[in-house]
Amino acid sequence: MSDLLKGPFHLTNTLTRKKEEFVPLRPPHVGLYVCGPTVYSDVHLGNVRSFLTFDVLYRWLTHLGYKVRYVRNITDVGHLVGDVDEGEDKIAKRARLEQLEPMEIVQKYTNGFHDVMRLFNILPPSIEPTATGHLIEQIGMVERIVESGYGYEANGSVYFDVPKFAEKHAYGELSGRRIDELMSNTRDTEGQDEKRSPLDFAIWKKAEPQHLMKWPSPWGEGFPGWHLECSAMSTKYLGLTFDIHGGGMDLKFPHHECEIAQSVAADGVAPVRYWMHGNMLTVNGRKMAKSEGNGFTPEELLTGNHKLLEQGYSAMTVRFFMLQCHYASTLDFSNAAMQAAEKGLERLMAAVVTLHKLKPGATDGADVEALTGRCYAAMNDDLNTPVMIAELFEGVRIINSVHDGKLELTAAGIDSLKGLYQSMVFEVLGLKEESSSASDDGAMDGLVQEFIRMRAEAKARKDFGSSDAIRDRLLALGIVLKDTKEGTTWERA
Amino acid sequence: MSDLLKGPFHLTNTLTRKKEEFVPLRPPHVGLYVCGPTVYSDVHLGNVRSFLTFDVLYRWLTHLGYKVRYVRNITDVGHLVGDVDEGEDKIAKRARLEQLEPMEIVQKYTNGFHDVMRLFNILPPSIEPTATGHLIEQIGMVERIVESGYGYEANGSVYFDVPKFAEKHAYGELSGRRIDELMSNTRDTEGQDEKRSPLDFAIWKKAEPQHLMKWPSPWGEGFPGWHLECSAMSTKYLGLTFDIHGGGMDLKFPHHECEIAQSVAADGVAPVRYWMHGNMLTVNGRKMAKSEGNGFTPEELLTGNHKLLEQGYSAMTVRFFMLQCHYASTLDFSNAAMQAAEKGLERLMAAVVTLHKLKPGATDGADVEALTGRCYAAMNDDLNTPVMIAELFEGVRIINSVHDGKLELTAAGIDSLKGLYQSMVFEVLGLKEESSSASDDGAMDGLVQEFIRMRAEAKARKDFGSSDAIRDRLLALGIVLKDTKEGTTWERA
Repeated sequence: MSDLLKGPFHLTNTLTRKKEEFVPLRPPHVGLYVCGPTVYSDVHLGNVRSFLTFDVLYRWLTHLGYKVRYVRNITDVGHLVGDVDEGEDKIAKRARLEQLEPMEIVQKYTNGFHDVMRLFNILPPSIEPTATGHLIEQIGMVERIVESGYGYEANGSVYFDVPKFAEKHAYGELSGRRIDELMSNTRDTEGQDEKRSPLDFAIWKKAEPQHLMKWPSPWGEGFPGWHLECSAMSTKYLGLTFDIHGGGMDLKFPHHECEIAQSVAADGVAPVRYWMHGNMLTVNGRKMAKSEGNGFTPEELLTGNHKLLEQGYSAMTVRFFMLQCHYASTLDFSNAAMQAAEKGLERLMAAVVTLHKLKPGATDGADVEALTGRCYAAMNDDLNTPVMIAELFEGVRIINSVHDGKLELTAAGIDSLKGLYQSMVFEVLGLKEESSSASDDGAMDGLVQEFIRMRAEAKARKDFGSSDAIRDRLLALGIVLKDTKEGTTWERA
Repeated sequence: MSDLLKGPFHLTNTLTRKKEEFVPLRPPHVGLYVCGPTVYSDVHLGNVRSFLTFDVLYRWLTHLGYKVRYVRNITDVGHLVGDVDEGEDKIAKRARLEQLEPMEIVQKYTNGFHDVMRLFNILPPSIEPTATGHLIEQIGMVERIVESGYGYEANGSVYFDVPKFAEKHAYGELSGRRIDELMSNTRDTEGQDEKRSPLDFAIWKKAEPQHLMKWPSPWGEGFPGWHLECSAMSTKYLGLTFDIHGGGMDLKFPHHECEIAQSVAADGVAPVRYWMHGNMLTVNGRKMAKSEGNGFTPEELLTGNHKLLEQGYSAMTVRFFMLQCHYASTLDFSNAAMQAAEKGLERLMAAVVTLHKLKPGATDGADVEALTGRCYAAMNDDLNTPVMIAELFEGVRIINSVHDGKLELTAAGIDSLKGLYQSMVFEVLGLKEESSSASDDGAMDGLVQEFIRMRAEAKARKDFGSSDAIRDRLLALGIVLKDTKEGTTWERA
């Protein structure tokens, strides 16, 4: 591979709002942290898009030769989500409703999440730490924040003192918020008497007696504030400052803003060099949300069993559909767009099959190296998958032209093209062949054997028109007959 | 289902060495704890056998109507394994060798373990807690043991005082060992100066500076002793005393013996009502072990890529092979036995297909209810899967006789038989249809459509002999043609 292909890789740093050259702290190592799922309900398609974005980042960095330590957490403690829900542990609430142990719910939805990731061919991270598995680290971080003077205890809870922090440090830089505006816009009711300012957030929360998930701490029985786990776990596995932190756009504020404040307060350094945020998935122009009735699950999508779906779509169709849009843009889900993606994916995959059947010619009628360069340039330009896919379709045109005899490629040219498609389609975009489930090789073989028998009979009566017709019809179905000394065998094209 | 089927269920309690009626503490709830894998290397087939044993127990209890909370842990802290390795954290050792973060290794082998469990259709437990996720609970238990006087600190480590414990409590009851014999047989070198007795075991171990996995504690930086995690986690999720604790026979001593001592010392009660131990897997009569070169991995087994394997065997063949032996007996793996299992499984699965094609008669020439009763009786007799499978083969004889017209069953009799096989084969034994990967529904449909076209042509020229022959040939392959107003469609039998 030429040097051209190696980069440099640029990505949009949402902290600086600029497209920057990516230079890791300790090459060839890259530390990547991505906010994972909260496992108290099923993931919906919007979540899948977010995890897919960082899957492509992980695949691309790996493809470029970096050794990536990819940490994606599991939030298994119910978390504080602002005014209304503050103090309410979501998971414990559901547990009481279902009369289950919270960790039973956590296990159920963690398993379900893993199933969905596998379905969409989203690679597992290097480490998948859980919030409940890092209480000691979280308590230690609360202690460091209290020691630095930016945390205070009140009635068994510990809060982060945002105004005090903002006096000496930037707060709101990532999300572009100003502390004075935040102050004037805030109305906070619960815990108001405990907090010095309505902007303060809990880093440790006292557990009420009915609370199911709680641990002993220097401040009594309680549980960590949600923002804390990512700070504690990224520090543990990636160090005080690491390369890339990713998550959905909706996590920018307050979650990621609070992560920055916590790390600066506890350890005196900004935790992240490149922040990266994926954009939302909308459905027919409306935000995807359970309350809107359009937050369908992967299963509904595959079966088509939802009022907004005209048909079922395969996991790879969904993956391809999402990759045809840049991660930083809003993506609108519609049946028309999905059907177009389905056709596009079929065309791409058919070309990959055709590519492996091409016969070499004497000259190169197309510039495969230039095409390769444009694919790498697109990916190095902030993971521009839609442009890269458009380049692959330019290659599809070349492949089909060579196949139709309208264009020539040398053996070397064909090999380069094979290498490019292997890398880009399967390794980087993470697409894969899909086979339907209701299949049965035994019956399949039986059917083909029937045709082999009929063809032998036709040959025996010298009816070569019929025997050739049978061979050609099977070939059209992707089944190749081979006549050997031991009889006729078959295989897939 | 008649009352007969419901039980009572008897299992061999390895604590009392008697077959006892199983009566849960709080019916219909059952608390089940099974020692899970240590995730610093691949699981081998012997491990699979152990997890399969408790999978069948879980399936059977669930089938009987119990609500089972099944906890199976992941040991992700390297553990102390006696004299030689004592003080050496296995995972951290491997991590240093591979220059990896320990949790990266843990993640890799946890993922691999889950893949293997899925392959063998071993159900996930209700909760799969990790040792690193329960440090606070383990430290709490060490504190309670120290408070009760059965633990003492020495140089940053905490040891369990076995002789002192044995003065007032039974020690060695589960494994049938006597404290005086243990004492005379022990030679202990490492940590000898710290321990009051060579029988004492670490419940908290001081971490040397080079140790990678360590946590703060009241005794300084360290890590929990291996025996501790199961005690702490079973107590947390199942209560101080729970119904069934399972594991491989090799865990009886010292691991399970120490678990009992820890719970009695910390909380004053025996933790487990029924202990259950699975027996070993040998290979051609020799113990399976990596050092013997016969501890093949599931992957080697499937591909046949191992010097001891004459061929590859499917996961369901292995599962069926293991189920044909009682869990408490040694099972010897050999190619001959595996090939016999392969044939047996094929015969059983073929009969299940035949069962769904049987035509009802006027009378019942076989007693399906008695057969059903014998299947339940076998499972209720200490999970006697080999006897139950023998009964299912008695059923295969009936099914094939009815199919051949030598025996009659009424529609009700056939339905009962279908219900029995659905329950026993798929739900309880956990077998499933295996399909080969190289299948393709598109080509399949194309082939069938060709036959539909040929049949229509034959019909058009009034050649009903040929059109019927085509229909019958497809039927023999499990493909049913249906003539509708809209044309001919097909489906699987």
